[in-house]
Amino acid sequence: MIDREPPMLDVIAPLVIPNTTKIVLVSLDGLGGLPRPETGRSELETARLPNLSQLASEAACGLIRHVAPGITPGSGPGHLGLFGYDPLRFQVGRGVLEALGIEFDLRPGDIAARGNFCTVDRAGRITDRRAGRISTDLCVRLTERLRTIRLPGVEVLVEPVKEHRFVLVLRARGRAGAAKLSAQLSESDPQLLDKPPLTIKALHPKAKATAALVNKFVAEARRLLADATPANMVLVRGFDQSPQLPRFPEVYGLRSAAIAAYPMYRGLARVVGMEVLKTGSTFAEELATLRDHWDAYDFFFVHYKDTDKAGEDGDFDAKVDALERLDRAIPEIRALKPDVLIVSGDHATPSILAAHGWQPVPVLVWSRYCGADVVTAFTERACGAGSLGVIPAQHLMPLVMANALRLTKFGA
Amino acid sequence: MIDREPPMLDVIAPLVIPNTTKIVLVSLDGLGGLPRPETGRSELETARLPNLSQLASEAACGLIRHVAPGITPGSGPGHLGLFGYDPLRFQVGRGVLEALGIEFDLRPGDIAARGNFCTVDRAGRITDRRAGRISTDLCVRLTERLRTIRLPGVEVLVEPVKEHRFVLVLRARGRAGAAKLSAQLSESDPQLLDKPPLTIKALHPKAKATAALVNKFVAEARRLLADATPANMVLVRGFDQSPQLPRFPEVYGLRSAAIAAYPMYRGLARVVGMEVLKTGSTFAEELATLRDHWDAYDFFFVHYKDTDKAGEDGDFDAKVDALERLDRAIPEIRALKPDVLIVSGDHATPSILAAHGWQPVPVLVWSRYCGADVVTAFTERACGAGSLGVIPAQHLMPLVMANALRLTKFGA
Repeated sequence: MIDREPPMLDVIAPLVIPNTTKIVLVSLDGLGGLPRPETGRSELETARLPNLSQLASEAACGLIRHVAPGITPGSGPGHLGLFGYDPLRFQVGRGVLEALGIEFDLRPGDIAARGNFCTVDRAGRITDRRAGRISTDLCVRLTERLRTIRLPGVEVLVEPVKEHRFVLVLRARGRAGAAKLSAQLSESDPQLLDKPPLTIKALHPKAKATAALVNKFVAEARRLLADATPANMVLVRGFDQSPQLPRFPEVYGLRSAAIAAYPMYRGLARVVGMEVLKTGSTFAEELATLRDHWDAYDFFFVHYKDTDKAGEDGDFDAKVDALERLDRAIPEIRALKPDVLIVSGDHATPSILAAHGWQPVPVLVWSRYCGADVVTAFTERACGAGSLGVIPAQHLMPLVMANALRLTKFGA
Repeated sequence: MIDREPPMLDVIAPLVIPNTTKIVLVSLDGLGGLPRPETGRSELETARLPNLSQLASEAACGLIRHVAPGITPGSGPGHLGLFGYDPLRFQVGRGVLEALGIEFDLRPGDIAARGNFCTVDRAGRITDRRAGRISTDLCVRLTERLRTIRLPGVEVLVEPVKEHRFVLVLRARGRAGAAKLSAQLSESDPQLLDKPPLTIKALHPKAKATAALVNKFVAEARRLLADATPANMVLVRGFDQSPQLPRFPEVYGLRSAAIAAYPMYRGLARVVGMEVLKTGSTFAEELATLRDHWDAYDFFFVHYKDTDKAGEDGDFDAKVDALERLDRAIPEIRALKPDVLIVSGDHATPSILAAHGWQPVPVLVWSRYCGADVVTAFTERACGAGSLGVIPAQHLMPLVMANALRLTKFGA
């Protein structure tokens, strides 16, 4: 007897068989919504979506829960779930996500942290944790100063992100270097005003040397930024190393490509080992990329950002528009004749919340073998009654693989 | 990678953020039912429930499974599940539950057991495990005798319950006392007639002293009850200590109050650290208590017993009536304008079973952000098609917390 239920990835891996079928996963960022109180209809229920409705009628539908009921997924857990990784078991730290977001080429053993420029008073107490959200230009110039910091035995890599944000990466020099660094560190951001930044502490004895290095970096940064008020100090937090995830192409036996205009999603795809295709900044360009590489891959992750952007802005109508634009692109995708077409998202971003939400997200799985259900509209409400039920996100990829006839049976 | 999925409470705790929203959880004891064979309609499907139907139309609905498919929950696991504790991980022993049921003030280290008065013949063999269900009055008088028993190093506390039932508690004297007692004991009840009561055995070496104490108590009891036939002997079982559960108000950051007319449910709420409000014996009095304390708490657990009582009696019509009475109280609760209103139960008590059942129990979660689903009736069948799906009970509290906007997102 096995002591506990094995993770789904371990169940799937030995069942994978080769095939030539093609799979397209279209992820509408922040797809799920909530009814607008005045009409009682969500964004999906308000939008005219003839192509998605048609697809839903032909597909198996359901709702996806990315982490657990009531838990609002960040972008990291949202995507890991879609890719088949249990987000409660595989966690990606803040610093790593920030680095992925600028497509920083994190290497095994690198320690990444999120940095903020902040303001401190003469006594060293924080008066603004975001340094008045300085311009990105100024952020770029100040990170140039931070790059002059030298620490013994490690490379110091500092990359500007946006406004007051930057990424700090420590990379051990030499072969045995990786073993020297540890991300088990406390944070310097007290998350409060009128307190000085905290000294970084080792949360494990093996992290002591790394803690000393980071504290030296912070002290040097303070010296270099002394004249740069409001950005006269730094806060660092979310220390982590690049997660060692099972590689998506190997687990599923799929030549896998990611098509995403935004760097964060390219980064998340790269972390699981997908190839990230060069594409433009619009969805039309993403579709052109899909067409151009159709023959070279078995699996395409296609990311659509506009739905999330509108939701985060609390702009219900803009989200409806974004959905209708996506709907018009569906025939183009179907014209490529994928064997399995999945439409879903990484989390809900209801316009009335103007933020990520915890609500389960509609999903449709279309293939020749998906089976029929009662669902004829791609909405939260309709999909709730679909044949897939309400499933954890990490159960989607096994379903997809089955529909692609790429899994053999379990047990003789 | 984390070796296994962390328990939900550990996932939630670091995500809790403060808010001023108010939450009411109305628990209809033994809520779920089964269709009456003559009509094919369950109690919920037979009752006229206009207010619950309206609420279901506006709410996210689903079914709750308290322990696992096919497992009938007792009151302990049923409530722990509702409060967000995985009942398979957190178990409350019979003796403790019996003590909670009379609101006995169990202290850390106390050993509680359920006691029965029973009848033994001259040879000491059991002829009636319940002593002919003696009157509660007689039980009270006989426990007075048992209270005269003195044991070295411990206080002996004996409390009557009802009919032949009593609670035995051993409390170590002195500061270091708690460490001396252990509940790892076998039971004296052979669960058979014509056998003598069993000697209590230590199930762990550290319980040897406690076993000797309990055997001394039983021997003394036999001597003291010799003339009290049919209640001329005792059986003791279900030894346990008060469980050290994470405290509900601290885990969720909620000032939490329990309103329950029955002592068992007050006891269960107290075990997780809720404040138990003084209330009357009717649901109308419970609602008055709710109104009176509205400003002082963030979370109210309101318990309704009538549904379970009717179900246990196998009285289908009485259960229908109990549901209709509860339905009429819903507007009063809504008038308080809670931000999140949940209606569910701790287990099913189908009238045709006349006992607790294993069937999943309807749940509705109403809030401004709960989302819409197709469910327009609060019944087992309708809720099965709701957007919450069929969820383990311990996933309810995270959902509730999310709807109260009291959880931040998971992962960056």
